Amino acid sequence: MTGIPVTFAAGPVGAWSIDCVTAVCGEGLPAARRLERVETHDQHFEAASWSIKAITSSFRYLHAAEHALLRSVEPPLGREGATRAALIPITKSAEWWELAQDERREVFEERSRHIATGLRYLPAIARRLYHCRDLGEPFDFLTWFEYAPSDADAFEELAGLLRATAEWRYVVREVDIRLSRD
Amino acid sequence: MTGIPVTFAAGPVGAWSIDCVTAVCGEGLPAARRLERVETHDQHFEAASWSIKAITSSFRYLHAAEHALLRSVEPPLGREGATRAALIPITKSAEWWELAQDERREVFEERSRHIATGLRYLPAIARRLYHCRDLGEPFDFLTWFEYAPSDADAFEELAGLLRATAEWRYVVREVDIRLSRD
Repeated sequence: MTGIPVTFAAGPVGAWSIDCVTAVCGEGLPAARRLERVETHDQHFEAASWSIKAITSSFRYLHAAEHALLRSVEPPLGREGATRAALIPITKSAEWWELAQDERREVFEERSRHIATGLRYLPAIARRLYHCRDLGEPFDFLTWFEYAPSDADAFEELAGLLRATAEWRYVVREVDIRLSRD
Repeated sequence: MTGIPVTFAAGPVGAWSIDCVTAVCGEGLPAARRLERVETHDQHFEAASWSIKAITSSFRYLHAAEHALLRSVEPPLGREGATRAALIPITKSAEWWELAQDERREVFEERSRHIATGLRYLPAIARRLYHCRDLGEPFDFLTWFEYAPSDADAFEELAGLLRATAEWRYVVREVDIRLSRD
């Protein structure tokens, strides 16, 4: 029972329409019309403008009590009314990755309240974290968010709060891709 | 600056001679004469009996004080007198990977003293941990050890101590490959 693989492929086809692509920090990604999200690494997207492979993994920072709390409120992906999405791939600095586990946890939660802040926006903002640093991708990890149009303001607030944290000072590349579906 | 990739390939050629392959727990690995260890994922070993790709990664359990201590005593790989080696690939249970970070750390160090025990055998037993769970390999991680023939008893002691820990109850597959070079 290993992680759930995923490929995000941007190009002429896909279930999601790409509304905008913002290079928040560092190099951006080429524009494209549509995005496909498939739970495999084996599908090849011939005409893709870009694609990223990633996989869910064990919890790197979550403590047991936080995990239990999260489990009790987190919604599934693919909810009928959740017609907005955001894909945010991120790369952190070498300095971050050289920190010991307790130092990263300290910045992540005790100083930045990453978990506590995310919890406040559940179940409205569904999210799934995927890792890709060890797969040789140009990003370290990426988060996929799904929410209803009526929760779009809440999502902006969440994104803004996270970007203002001590943790975000270690982010060296961030692309923010907003999407919608009918 | 991502991790150091590695491929271990067992077959007719390689710098290391395989002395024995033991299936400690779960399925073993086919016998082979030699083992090659290359720091790339791009080399294909046509005649290999088996091969495993892995990569070094961020520290999953190490705290800052432990990291500093480790750094002060850990030897490099490839020391002239270190003509014995062990390659130990391991898979842990689904139960382990579903634990939260603090629960895994608790079993790993507070209950099993994995780091403290390893430290007692430094600098005699050089070691490098590689991860491969997220790469789709049949093992979760593997450790490569190098030591002098005169430290072979110390290595057996270390391996025995680790296998007797609470952490090892989560191991569902373990292969122990012993090697030597001239």
